[in-house]
Amino acid sequence: MPWETAFTQCLGVSLPVALAPMAGVAGGELAAAVSEAGGFGIVAGGYAKEEQFLPEIEKVKRKTDRPWGIGFLTWALEQNPKALDAALEHRPAAVFLSCGDPSPWADPVHAAGARLICQVTSVREAARARDAGADVLVAQGQEAGGHGDSVRGTFSLVPAVVDIAPSIPVLAAGAVADGRGLVAALALGAAGVLVGTRFYAAAEAIGHPAAKARLVTSGGDDTVRTRVFDIVRDTGWPERYPGRALRNRLYDEWNGREDELRTKLDEVRPAYQAAVAAGDFDVAVVWAGEGIDLIHGVEPAGEIVRRMVADAEKCLDRIHALRPSP
Amino acid sequence: MPWETAFTQCLGVSLPVALAPMAGVAGGELAAAVSEAGGFGIVAGGYAKEEQFLPEIEKVKRKTDRPWGIGFLTWALEQNPKALDAALEHRPAAVFLSCGDPSPWADPVHAAGARLICQVTSVREAARARDAGADVLVAQGQEAGGHGDSVRGTFSLVPAVVDIAPSIPVLAAGAVADGRGLVAALALGAAGVLVGTRFYAAAEAIGHPAAKARLVTSGGDDTVRTRVFDIVRDTGWPERYPGRALRNRLYDEWNGREDELRTKLDEVRPAYQAAVAAGDFDVAVVWAGEGIDLIHGVEPAGEIVRRMVADAEKCLDRIHALRPSP
Repeated sequence: MPWETAFTQCLGVSLPVALAPMAGVAGGELAAAVSEAGGFGIVAGGYAKEEQFLPEIEKVKRKTDRPWGIGFLTWALEQNPKALDAALEHRPAAVFLSCGDPSPWADPVHAAGARLICQVTSVREAARARDAGADVLVAQGQEAGGHGDSVRGTFSLVPAVVDIAPSIPVLAAGAVADGRGLVAALALGAAGVLVGTRFYAAAEAIGHPAAKARLVTSGGDDTVRTRVFDIVRDTGWPERYPGRALRNRLYDEWNGREDELRTKLDEVRPAYQAAVAAGDFDVAVVWAGEGIDLIHGVEPAGEIVRRMVADAEKCLDRIHALRPSP
Repeated sequence: MPWETAFTQCLGVSLPVALAPMAGVAGGELAAAVSEAGGFGIVAGGYAKEEQFLPEIEKVKRKTDRPWGIGFLTWALEQNPKALDAALEHRPAAVFLSCGDPSPWADPVHAAGARLICQVTSVREAARARDAGADVLVAQGQEAGGHGDSVRGTFSLVPAVVDIAPSIPVLAAGAVADGRGLVAALALGAAGVLVGTRFYAAAEAIGHPAAKARLVTSGGDDTVRTRVFDIVRDTGWPERYPGRALRNRLYDEWNGREDELRTKLDEVRPAYQAAVAAGDFDVAVVWAGEGIDLIHGVEPAGEIVRRMVADAEKCLDRIHALRPSP
């Protein structure tokens, strides 16, 4: 059954649950599964390389007629601006931008008839995105998996962003992994949630089964924010964006010794690449948010959406039972 | 009108709102005001110095017949264990412990007929407190003002703690400042909230008016976690506990130069003490959590409690309007 919020109205979907466009994880199959379940699937445009994201856009179009979006890292889009045009030709319902200034991109996105979703990590950044013409704001707390420069927690950031942009739908991001989180986000004033790591542990997510298994067996106490993996991977991430990942042997070895690591890349990088190929996640990174305590299995994305919404309704009933009778 | 949760039942109060025992802020007058409003006021026992907390206990007893509690920093109590006996003689309804191992204190607290409330900052610490016999767990996120070693966010920590201690009432702490936060905490599975900074900006709080005024005019983007102030103040806080405070000139001057600061205390400390005396908060510390975006005035604590609960009811009505009709 549909929930109607300012977000669902804005995107024409029936449930206030969006997929975070996780680079290397949120491909067309996962985005389509979320959209088919009534949520809003966002394909990762990631590093803005056409050869990577265009095949995933083809997949999402083949698998669903419902609205879907495409997400880019703004700093990567700046390095290859024509990626936006290539994506807009496929008529996404929305373009999602994170990690950078969205201002230059608002006009072309709107001219193509798409909505602009801007992820922000502070109240100041939210004000900038609001003024740039964002149609949806995503308030991302530092709990979130993967990259971000947030120092704010989800719990404090969401209502603060809602209050400075009362007419713009806000999604809560960072540690939202079940129906309790969905209701909590709505309580804080959000019009929905953006869910990352919980969907990494979905059957349709791109990713090694051993990485997904670690999301199930690890807890939120075991995640760290670090640049160690990016130094080894050399993906171009600016220094200011650490990434939240599962702590592992590679992290323990190099955390606090990042300068030395930079001098040892001739040895460490080939070993890292071999670990990635072998699915050895004592060395290879598993990006993960703090919400992983709530992940108990790898399941189809549609099932994750359905249970999140069903549990949200039970959660509301539970709170009502506490409420004073009038 | 009362809300009934596992926390209100445990403490015999009518509202699921507790006062954080902020050292130097939560005296008997503030604790009594929260208890009189139906919440649970906890007097700061802070550094476990009888000459500081016993007069505040006298005040809370004089001002309310309702249940109240006393809070200690566990590491400080270890240095002066007889402070616990001195407090228990006054028959608090609960003893609140944070920042240390609660295990040795459970028996004397329970023997005096008081409840044991343990603040925790990770799932691992929650399991230890549960096994030590805690009657209430407080899951404190890194958003919270003042000292703490948390690296977890409130949004992720609360449901994770609830899940490993399903039979113990859990309070959410860290960035809870209004009715939205109360409902969000209940949604995440908490049985109530522990509120700090919002009550620092209460009329009854101990504190300089200029400090309270800064809580109203500053935003959550302006808080930092730091040891700078503790190095200057020399209050004995162990290194592992930074404190969240408003960023100010002293912080900007010494952040990242803590080692040099330790060599300059002969100059910096007297200037700091003069700033405290003068109410100059460009130098003196104002402990503050990230939730300060939601603080718009200094008000009586009872009014803060009443509006939080009234707004929580409105918040629930708002969420219900989004919900699918059966």
